[in-house]
Amino acid sequence: MSDSSVSLRPGSTIGILGGGQLGRMLALAGAKLGLKSHIYCPDPQSPAFDVTPFKTVAAYDDEAALRKFAAQVDVVTYEFENVPAATAEILSSLKPLRPGANALAISQDRLAEKGFLASKNIPVAPYRAVHLLEDLKAAVAELGLPAVLKTTRLGYDGKGQRVLRQPGDAEAAFAELKPHPLVLEGFVPFEKEISVVVARGVDGSVRAFDPAENVHRHHILFTSTVPADIAPGIAKHAAMLAKVIVVALDYVGVLGVEFFVLGGERPSLVVNEIAPRVHNSGHWTEAVCLTDQFEQHMRAVAGWPLGDPRRYADVVMQNLIGDEVEVVPGGIDGDTQPHLYGKAEARPGRKMGHINRIVRSE
Amino acid sequence: MSDSSVSLRPGSTIGILGGGQLGRMLALAGAKLGLKSHIYCPDPQSPAFDVTPFKTVAAYDDEAALRKFAAQVDVVTYEFENVPAATAEILSSLKPLRPGANALAISQDRLAEKGFLASKNIPVAPYRAVHLLEDLKAAVAELGLPAVLKTTRLGYDGKGQRVLRQPGDAEAAFAELKPHPLVLEGFVPFEKEISVVVARGVDGSVRAFDPAENVHRHHILFTSTVPADIAPGIAKHAAMLAKVIVVALDYVGVLGVEFFVLGGERPSLVVNEIAPRVHNSGHWTEAVCLTDQFEQHMRAVAGWPLGDPRRYADVVMQNLIGDEVEVVPGGIDGDTQPHLYGKAEARPGRKMGHINRIVRSE
Repeated sequence: MSDSSVSLRPGSTIGILGGGQLGRMLALAGAKLGLKSHIYCPDPQSPAFDVTPFKTVAAYDDEAALRKFAAQVDVVTYEFENVPAATAEILSSLKPLRPGANALAISQDRLAEKGFLASKNIPVAPYRAVHLLEDLKAAVAELGLPAVLKTTRLGYDGKGQRVLRQPGDAEAAFAELKPHPLVLEGFVPFEKEISVVVARGVDGSVRAFDPAENVHRHHILFTSTVPADIAPGIAKHAAMLAKVIVVALDYVGVLGVEFFVLGGERPSLVVNEIAPRVHNSGHWTEAVCLTDQFEQHMRAVAGWPLGDPRRYADVVMQNLIGDEVEVVPGGIDGDTQPHLYGKAEARPGRKMGHINRIVRSE
Repeated sequence: MSDSSVSLRPGSTIGILGGGQLGRMLALAGAKLGLKSHIYCPDPQSPAFDVTPFKTVAAYDDEAALRKFAAQVDVVTYEFENVPAATAEILSSLKPLRPGANALAISQDRLAEKGFLASKNIPVAPYRAVHLLEDLKAAVAELGLPAVLKTTRLGYDGKGQRVLRQPGDAEAAFAELKPHPLVLEGFVPFEKEISVVVARGVDGSVRAFDPAENVHRHHILFTSTVPADIAPGIAKHAAMLAKVIVVALDYVGVLGVEFFVLGGERPSLVVNEIAPRVHNSGHWTEAVCLTDQFEQHMRAVAGWPLGDPRRYADVVMQNLIGDEVEVVPGGIDGDTQPHLYGKAEARPGRKMGHINRIVRSE
């Protein structure tokens, strides 16, 4: 449905594709707004199923299930960018899909994303499309080494990429990564990674949370610290670029933008990637903002006014990976807000929860 | 079960008696801690049923249903003080009941409550038990008029009470109020009402939120403002009295204490009533505290460490009664955090939600 002005009444139902922790946290935020959430996910053990009685367990390409789901909800959103294009097409023909299908199409393909960003004069790392091994060799010659060869689709948390350090690495990496085409990204000598979570409402209003400074461990986000240790001008510039992106996409909802901060006498920014959803590096907002990223997203997709993203306090968000979740309940007193995702099994590398720690100025 | 040291593992299930907005908000807070909530309520339309798939729809005196419920949960708590004694007895024989049955027995009977408070040297308004009309006439003679005649059980939001202004009012009021005995409360010339929400953990630790100043409208809470406009000494004294109460009850969970602030050169406090549960006058904590009253209660009943009750900002909580709920979504931008309870029908006098408004000092 193309009606971009639909505003839901309290008591309406938001359909959420994906039943992981992001869907779960969206459903919890929706409940506070008096909105019901219907979770659609193929995995019957999805953590989001524990926070709502409204669910569909079905594959994302099950057209009958998708149509039934659409009939039971008032608007559809999602917690992950890899929603199949056919799924998005079916659902958006029946109910408003927010964010729209164009945000999915662009963000689920690295080449499309970089092309979109470059077309809006938003700086990205140098890159080349790689269809054939010959393309890769030419790209290595042009961009130099080291460089990173990546799949264009379905990469996350360091999966689907290989670092090339010598020309001899190219052939094996090209053979290992599937499916083709791939993309080669030139090395960017960045000092740190920051991210901005930005929201745009149905009415076109745009609000950004403060930039977070992100530290990864084993290719998985470890901490997000706010405020980021960056110059005020860089923070403002990051927020401005994030706003340009959501306006250019005619976006509705929350979007995460990851940046590399390049060093040097005049620091500058390049966009690493965008995610058309709530973002792990925005979990800190729950502890220190009147409206957190989950409520902000649900307000936007409901067609409601955006909330206030201002921050009360300095904060560090730390992911709890695998058995790190055992810090709960023993280690959660003091200035600590835990958030667990209700996953039964603490497998290595699995995001089990996070902890927000307040840094008080007193 | 009398084991007061049980600490739940994440993923455990908390059974909640009562499916209204308080049970709903408890379940939402529990989900953030990775705890499941199983709601027990006779009304199939209960708002709390929209935020968990785990539910029992049965009467509170359905022993078979209570036993089945107890078998599916790890600890039992409640959102209302009028849990029947027999219900509490059955459940507490099977699983830890937190807060304990003694808190229910005392708080659901005004005479027992006043007797308990007085026995701990906690000031209460002058009162007399009224079994017969003769008792009432004698009590009026002793306490003077005006005075308030109240049922000892099941009164709330101004229901179950009559103000006596002249001796001739006594007979009709005595005949109208049921069941007997009743209690006559002497007039207390109070300047304002405040309340303290206090928590006690399984480990005996006690934490109090700041006192709220409460304004009622048509006998229903209208606003809670924090900080209350009271002298620092009065705020400290209120917190101290609240702590004395939870220690005396060997209490586990969150408890609300309502006070009258008496004027005069040296202001003083009397306790109006206590509620062994999260409290409407504590809803502001969700907007401005790292740990709100709902999470605090769930931490306590799970046997987990209590969280930090400190406040980031000044705040006013306003209840949305009946069609006042229509302020959402139009009027929720700016420094406003709405919370709706998901009730389908906005009947007059019905609590449909609340709004927290931040008062920024900048």
